[in-house]
Amino acid sequence: MLEDIIVLAHGAGGKENEALIKRLFSKLRLKKINGGIGLDAFDDGAIIPIQNNVVTSIDSYTVDPIFFPGGNIGKLAATGSINDVAVMGADPIAALDSIVVEEGFPITDLKKIINSMIEVFEQENIAVVGGDLKVMPKGKLDKILISTVVIGKLVNKTLYLDSKVKPGDKIIVSGTVGDHGAVITALQMGIEAEIGELISDCQPVTKVMRIVREFKGVHAAKDPTRGGLAMSLNEFASKSNVTIEIDEELIPVRSEVKALSEMLGIDPLILACEGRVVLSVDSEIADEVVKALRKNGYKDASIIGYARDDEDWNGLVLLKTVTGGLRILDKPTGEITPRIC
Amino acid sequence: MLEDIIVLAHGAGGKENEALIKRLFSKLRLKKINGGIGLDAFDDGAIIPIQNNVVTSIDSYTVDPIFFPGGNIGKLAATGSINDVAVMGADPIAALDSIVVEEGFPITDLKKIINSMIEVFEQENIAVVGGDLKVMPKGKLDKILISTVVIGKLVNKTLYLDSKVKPGDKIIVSGTVGDHGAVITALQMGIEAEIGELISDCQPVTKVMRIVREFKGVHAAKDPTRGGLAMSLNEFASKSNVTIEIDEELIPVRSEVKALSEMLGIDPLILACEGRVVLSVDSEIADEVVKALRKNGYKDASIIGYARDDEDWNGLVLLKTVTGGLRILDKPTGEITPRIC
Repeated sequence: MLEDIIVLAHGAGGKENEALIKRLFSKLRLKKINGGIGLDAFDDGAIIPIQNNVVTSIDSYTVDPIFFPGGNIGKLAATGSINDVAVMGADPIAALDSIVVEEGFPITDLKKIINSMIEVFEQENIAVVGGDLKVMPKGKLDKILISTVVIGKLVNKTLYLDSKVKPGDKIIVSGTVGDHGAVITALQMGIEAEIGELISDCQPVTKVMRIVREFKGVHAAKDPTRGGLAMSLNEFASKSNVTIEIDEELIPVRSEVKALSEMLGIDPLILACEGRVVLSVDSEIADEVVKALRKNGYKDASIIGYARDDEDWNGLVLLKTVTGGLRILDKPTGEITPRIC
Repeated sequence: MLEDIIVLAHGAGGKENEALIKRLFSKLRLKKINGGIGLDAFDDGAIIPIQNNVVTSIDSYTVDPIFFPGGNIGKLAATGSINDVAVMGADPIAALDSIVVEEGFPITDLKKIINSMIEVFEQENIAVVGGDLKVMPKGKLDKILISTVVIGKLVNKTLYLDSKVKPGDKIIVSGTVGDHGAVITALQMGIEAEIGELISDCQPVTKVMRIVREFKGVHAAKDPTRGGLAMSLNEFASKSNVTIEIDEELIPVRSEVKALSEMLGIDPLILACEGRVVLSVDSEIADEVVKALRKNGYKDASIIGYARDDEDWNGLVLLKTVTGGLRILDKPTGEITPRIC
């Protein structure tokens, strides 16, 4: 039926556009922040009452395939931008989304995707205050692309920055690394049979960050998405001008991810996570942070290394391999996986 | 040369991604707001110090063709989101952008596009505090798609809302309508020879809004983009529950736009503008507002009609045609022009 697929008129800014948006967002409950103006006004912009520093991030999500074990592009679009704001030390409070969809796309799939996005935002008590929906003619876009912006307010004025890692800090990861990257890469390579029970780790890290924020002595936090743990640690090392040494044996990697990585010839440390946090914390609190995380269900939270001031290696990440050698873990280079997020 | 086109590695979140972003944004001067954290930090999110209500809007720009008389997709992406925030009554102060580009896209074109975007933001003193850049494999996206978010702060706590039009108000447009829509539609139809000297009206409306904000008695403002003047006036009428009557003879439409519209069989009142404002103002100040606009270079600024409380027609827009008849100017429906913005 014609009405079950996206047509150009759905993106033209007229009657059909408005009707479609109303239909797609019918399940949305939180459409504005108290005292503000939100999605329900269908005005030019949104108003977010905020009396604090605004923390914000934008990302466009192009993941392929759009449905994958553990999530879909809608869940990812909400999660990814929430996480960017959360790891800065902020409480996400509002979001805006912009959806561009290909003519002919099934509206049932679009509803599924948007409902997943809404579900994440509502679970996190984040209002969707504005958005955009456009249609590109058939063949001009591969299915769908979603951009999201999340706006948060700073809590306790504590900012977790890549540049704040201190020599002596311990490096912690909140869970296994590479799950999302392994799943998506395997799907793209057509070896879905090998994925088995493995699912993407796609989930908000707000709970992790709320636990972490209870501690004094947390210096830096990051969600290791594109480029994986390797890229995040390199950001820490180069921006803080410290040497980071991590121990391969201590890094939690699922056996399925290890197996897939070997099959694909990819280092799991460059595979994207979409629900993990890498932390740099004062060594005195490191064990307690890990204990608190494990107690709250993050059973794979682990100390994986430390930072030091070492003139010869500052700005770099060193990996102690399982065989005992030490090698530079460089910033990832090359194609890795296209459309991983 | 390989380095002159976009490759997948440019979007992979690794070394090449970082290097490309640095290269593309080399001309950007305003990378953060004083006391905040911006694009130069390459961190997960941006910090915008703001002690006020946040006004914000997101849009994804898909315009086809990406270069057109009067602008390109970069200029449009900056302008469009600036305008959404400005017409709410706010001062735009910060922006974030997310670029998704097709593998194989020429980097010189990408630089041109980004430089146009940067130029608009810098002319407006808006800092680009964050962004994202992804690459989609060849054939998965038609050239380039840009999403922008602009964040503004409210001035004087005066909000211009679609729902605030009052019976008795005069309706003003700040300039000719339909220029952008006519240019893009003509290009898509392959009749560029007919465009002649006509160019898109793509430009920030911040100056118009600064003039307008000097007046008390301005109730609603809107930039008539997709769906054109017809859609904007319908938003006013339905959200404010008033009858809006406009006079076709008073609406400034360039002769080239009229000619193109006739040729294309499209009503110029549904053609998108990208640099105009529609205002609803107290009748007592209407002449003065128009005078102030004309004095400042907006020589086509005109009163085109008024709002009234008329039980029979409230929620609707009536158009007095040149022949003297009165017809309902409905919300546009159907395809209009795909990828107009």
